Amino acid sequence: MIKITVSASKKYDVIMEQNALNKAAELLSQAEIKSDRKLCIITDKTVNSFYGKESGILWQNLSQAGFRLYKYVFEGGESNKTMSTVTAILDYLADNKFSRSDALIALGGGIVGDVTGFSAASFLRGIDYIQIPTTLLATVDSSVGGKTGVNLKAGKNLAGAFWQPSLVIFDPQVLQSLPQHMILDGIAETIKAGFINDKTIIDEAENNISIGDNRFLTQLAAKAVEVKRKVVEEDERDNGSRQLLNFGHTLAHAIEKCSNYRISHGHAVAKGMAIVSAAADEMAWTSVPCAGKILEILKKFNFPLDCPYSPSQLTEAALQDKKIRGNKITLVIPESIGKCRLKTIATDDLEEFITCGMDALKGM
Amino acid sequence: MIKITVSASKKYDVIMEQNALNKAAELLSQAEIKSDRKLCIITDKTVNSFYGKESGILWQNLSQAGFRLYKYVFEGGESNKTMSTVTAILDYLADNKFSRSDALIALGGGIVGDVTGFSAASFLRGIDYIQIPTTLLATVDSSVGGKTGVNLKAGKNLAGAFWQPSLVIFDPQVLQSLPQHMILDGIAETIKAGFINDKTIIDEAENNISIGDNRFLTQLAAKAVEVKRKVVEEDERDNGSRQLLNFGHTLAHAIEKCSNYRISHGHAVAKGMAIVSAAADEMAWTSVPCAGKILEILKKFNFPLDCPYSPSQLTEAALQDKKIRGNKITLVIPESIGKCRLKTIATDDLEEFITCGMDALKGM
Repeated sequence: MIKITVSASKKYDVIMEQNALNKAAELLSQAEIKSDRKLCIITDKTVNSFYGKESGILWQNLSQAGFRLYKYVFEGGESNKTMSTVTAILDYLADNKFSRSDALIALGGGIVGDVTGFSAASFLRGIDYIQIPTTLLATVDSSVGGKTGVNLKAGKNLAGAFWQPSLVIFDPQVLQSLPQHMILDGIAETIKAGFINDKTIIDEAENNISIGDNRFLTQLAAKAVEVKRKVVEEDERDNGSRQLLNFGHTLAHAIEKCSNYRISHGHAVAKGMAIVSAAADEMAWTSVPCAGKILEILKKFNFPLDCPYSPSQLTEAALQDKKIRGNKITLVIPESIGKCRLKTIATDDLEEFITCGMDALKGM
Repeated sequence: MIKITVSASKKYDVIMEQNALNKAAELLSQAEIKSDRKLCIITDKTVNSFYGKESGILWQNLSQAGFRLYKYVFEGGESNKTMSTVTAILDYLADNKFSRSDALIALGGGIVGDVTGFSAASFLRGIDYIQIPTTLLATVDSSVGGKTGVNLKAGKNLAGAFWQPSLVIFDPQVLQSLPQHMILDGIAETIKAGFINDKTIIDEAENNISIGDNRFLTQLAAKAVEVKRKVVEEDERDNGSRQLLNFGHTLAHAIEKCSNYRISHGHAVAKGMAIVSAAADEMAWTSVPCAGKILEILKKFNFPLDCPYSPSQLTEAALQDKKIRGNKITLVIPESIGKCRLKTIATDDLEEFITCGMDALKGM
């Protein structure tokens, strides 16, 4: 068992253990979530069919321990990550007389986690919730750190709350049900954590590319969560150093948007890291050249690094980002392998920066 | 000028000053809300016609100072205190590219304040907002303390957030536009604060019942806000002593509900305080008899203290309250004039308690 304790505004454990779902009640009890509570499992249709069923391991384990279980299943996908889904969940909880001492379980990927977390933050002005991520991406990214939220018409994640979970449980067994491209999505974020703050992730990924090996993936994921823990503890509300986690993300969000979300998040992050690191080398903003190594790793995992959009298309999409204040934009720039820093540039200079990166990539 | 500084999770001032609306920009600037920001005034149709107009004092003052002003006006009333109103506000802010450094102004009564506060808490995971209450009730009650929220189908205030404002501005001038019964609503909460924690409010109210005197009302309101400040600083998230603010409220919420919200909040609180204090005296839970004095004050202000609902109707409505955990309910009981305490009873005993209070009232 791997246990990482996050000391944010709330203190909680991230538990990573093979077959952890079989002992969920015990883990909840250790996190002071006792079995006299009501629990509502919130999940989407796909994950429900794998891990949400009343006959399944999780439900059986929790109900045998005495928890009064409820379940709310919604249609998955970005188009349902909305205020109306949250409203429907809140109505469901109120109709079933959930109180401040009851709790929610987010069972699923990042969308389920974000929607459930925001519902937990908003119901009765805040109740507990537990993250049980069922993708590698959610495990290393959204399940830890308390950023919750939904999309608005104008863009992604524009509404939400900072609301930390009471516990995160990752059972590597869930990786068995993931197609390879979804494993890769998680690997992109894992490698990203390495580039930001932990060179050993890069070293290990370099020597071992067995993406079907759960033990290997769990070890890398734990290191990525450790990077996230440090950053979140330092800057929970994302006013400074937490922005380092956005390495590759300004461009990733733009690429996702331009593709109408046909390019998945992790794959877009891989492309984004490639472009940014190539541009940063060109601009001589890195202390040592970084793009070569970054591309080498990404290619080892067979990430397609082509970008079908022009710098002007990407710039336009990027400048709609919610984080832009005034006429400046903060980028995450690699300094060396395992270290990134924030650099603020004028929004007017963004297109030139992207062009420079994309041009440099062509020759690599 | 009266200034009360609230040191909650965020530190902010409550400013009470005749004609404060004429110097709103200056007050915002002192609260570090600078004029390079966008501001969105959120208000309802009625208040908009009094204080929200582009030609009005507030708008003129803020726009002349350089703020970029926006306005969102919604249909007032409990039936619009909903997730859909919040969603519409969030969409409006996103469409107008509000950023994390911009802010909202809640201009109105409690409903406007609660809806605006929850919108501010949720937009981009939290932006600043300023409360400008335009009723006495909102001034002494909802504008201070950061409880924000909306109703769900199943009941009032079931969704929301704890999110403190950055500044509260009360201009007593706004009282001119209030009908007498709305002034009384505010007086009920003001007197309540006195009964909880400040006997001088009761003494002053006893000697001076001129509800048309703004200076008198402002002084009493300041004392009530001071009581609220202390309680909120001690227990911001309402897990303990903040519940003292609910004196009379368990019954008030039940009475409002039974009346289908035709009996207003302050008037219901007056009735609730009368029943609870009569019952507490009967049960010998007070250290000195309190009901006599409490009734005397309420009658001086001509609060109608009859209750048209039976103990069983009130009990049923009260037990739907969100604060009930398990089979217990926490009541606020007067101990002496100017001091209340929490007392938890079995929900099974609530009807007897209410019956006892209503019976005792008949003979008073």
